[in-house]
Amino acid sequence: MLRIPYSDLYAEMLRVLLGLGFARPRAERGARLFAEASRDGVASHGLNRFPRFVEMARSGVVDVQAEPVCVGSRGPMEQWDGCRGAGNLNAYACMERAIALARLHGLGCVALRNTNHWMRGGSYGWQAAEAGMIGLCWTNTMPNLPPWGARERRIGNNPLVIAVPRAEGHVVLDMALSQFSYGGLARYRLREEMLPVAGGFDPEGRLTHDPAAIEQSGRPLPIGYWKGSGLALLLDLTAALLSGGLATHQISADPHAETALSQVFIALDPCPFGEVDGRARLIDDVIAYVHDAAPAHDGDRIYYPGERTLLTRKANLERGIPVAPAVWHQVQAYDG
Amino acid sequence: MLRIPYSDLYAEMLRVLLGLGFARPRAERGARLFAEASRDGVASHGLNRFPRFVEMARSGVVDVQAEPVCVGSRGPMEQWDGCRGAGNLNAYACMERAIALARLHGLGCVALRNTNHWMRGGSYGWQAAEAGMIGLCWTNTMPNLPPWGARERRIGNNPLVIAVPRAEGHVVLDMALSQFSYGGLARYRLREEMLPVAGGFDPEGRLTHDPAAIEQSGRPLPIGYWKGSGLALLLDLTAALLSGGLATHQISADPHAETALSQVFIALDPCPFGEVDGRARLIDDVIAYVHDAAPAHDGDRIYYPGERTLLTRKANLERGIPVAPAVWHQVQAYDG
Repeated sequence: MLRIPYSDLYAEMLRVLLGLGFARPRAERGARLFAEASRDGVASHGLNRFPRFVEMARSGVVDVQAEPVCVGSRGPMEQWDGCRGAGNLNAYACMERAIALARLHGLGCVALRNTNHWMRGGSYGWQAAEAGMIGLCWTNTMPNLPPWGARERRIGNNPLVIAVPRAEGHVVLDMALSQFSYGGLARYRLREEMLPVAGGFDPEGRLTHDPAAIEQSGRPLPIGYWKGSGLALLLDLTAALLSGGLATHQISADPHAETALSQVFIALDPCPFGEVDGRARLIDDVIAYVHDAAPAHDGDRIYYPGERTLLTRKANLERGIPVAPAVWHQVQAYDG
Repeated sequence: MLRIPYSDLYAEMLRVLLGLGFARPRAERGARLFAEASRDGVASHGLNRFPRFVEMARSGVVDVQAEPVCVGSRGPMEQWDGCRGAGNLNAYACMERAIALARLHGLGCVALRNTNHWMRGGSYGWQAAEAGMIGLCWTNTMPNLPPWGARERRIGNNPLVIAVPRAEGHVVLDMALSQFSYGGLARYRLREEMLPVAGGFDPEGRLTHDPAAIEQSGRPLPIGYWKGSGLALLLDLTAALLSGGLATHQISADPHAETALSQVFIALDPCPFGEVDGRARLIDDVIAYVHDAAPAHDGDRIYYPGERTLLTRKANLERGIPVAPAVWHQVQAYDG
């Protein structure tokens, strides 16, 4: 693994996005969102995802020129059409709009249809928290998980993000509804490691810790088995309804053609009726209470969601952003 | 197991609630919510929970006279104080208010503090769906689960409910964030059965299917391990912030004194910008797609969330509501 300065990663991505035809402010935002994902330890939706994004922009699945447009407005609630533009720029714009609505109304809800993969979902949680807002957003995806009891992939892993602003470090949960992503399974397989907990079924239908067996069966587990399966269905339904967009069964199951997704972005003022005495301290107390829990194994420590992101970010900014050399050279070789 | 007509169950609960001092319309609503939980197969929060509710009303943990009051209002967003009244009546009133706000604004959000256990969370999802609204609500609880990596119980199992209205049967997800409830563990133990999937740790810290070992260690699993642990923390934080109420660490861990909970009730118009062509059919198509997935085992069928509730409801209304004789006789013996 190579380490490079954040500014180099950002500059290279910016160069490529400008070359693809993104207007400068949009290219800057896009480069920042991709580079920050790698900076925060989510290379799967940062540098490592960048080549597929470039490919989708070149093939026209992602329309480089398209900007999202508001197609319905009702006070705190809006509906936007992503016009199949860049998924991360669309998502950023819609969370920005939800934040603006929340400043006016206490909360804002923007439902987005016809968009592309939002890349790192956590970005929009951090964005809301940086603005002092609670952020809540989710997306549907192509069918990539079997519903509970089924063999076939017919629900999405529909990532869900919830963020709470906090001076000492925002609390940000960013989770797909599969126990392990396909990328995660591949990483365990390449390291020749077993999963820490059962992650799916083997081809004979038995629960297994073996990542290769799950890749073979195509049956990863939803979190909480039947519970995550139900949650995925409800997130898909609500996103498609509120946005007037497509549901998982209407979305191409080809990862290179996955498009026209539906998403929901909600921002909420954490103190909607004025600062209640001690609300900031309350958040710290909740975190301290969880931190101080006796660990299951001596010497272990308990993390809150988002805590390790900050540790990774700090380390990567100091020591350089880790990049897979092959991908980095591939991106450097793109025409400007 | 005894079976009794729904009307008998309802009448007996109504008699007891009136005897406790509930005004008639409130007693009727409370009796209906309890009786419907048993009717729908959730006796744990229906008849079987009723004696503890009576005990808490008698001990004053639940204030029979208290009605919820609006303490903050900002367009689509309101804050209510439950005044430690009956948890199910408070929750019902707040979802009703969220629905009214959603009719005005497209969505409504009511945050409730200082309330009691809402009993069956699904009630408020069905309530929203019956009103033609998407319902989304969650509650915090006393600390009853260890956060991921910890031995001690320091997060709640914070149930989450999401409901989508549908003519052929609403889609209603009602799930606690523990893989199995303590009541569920006890039922498996009494039947001398193992859990179908790992449900927690044994006293030696190993994942186990043995319900008794989990009861002994006090370490049930959150759904999705680290994922559900993070989700529980975020649902607690958001409920406490939006309601101005208490967080899990401030709530008594004595199940007989668990009170002053914080909850959030959100209602959303499923077609906020007018009926989009085919939205109702979209929901049916999503359900059909999941239903038709090839089952993992020949002859199995795939259910959507809420589907089995309707089957149970129909069977119980035809054949009588199943009641545990001891509990039924206990309730019949209460003073009127």
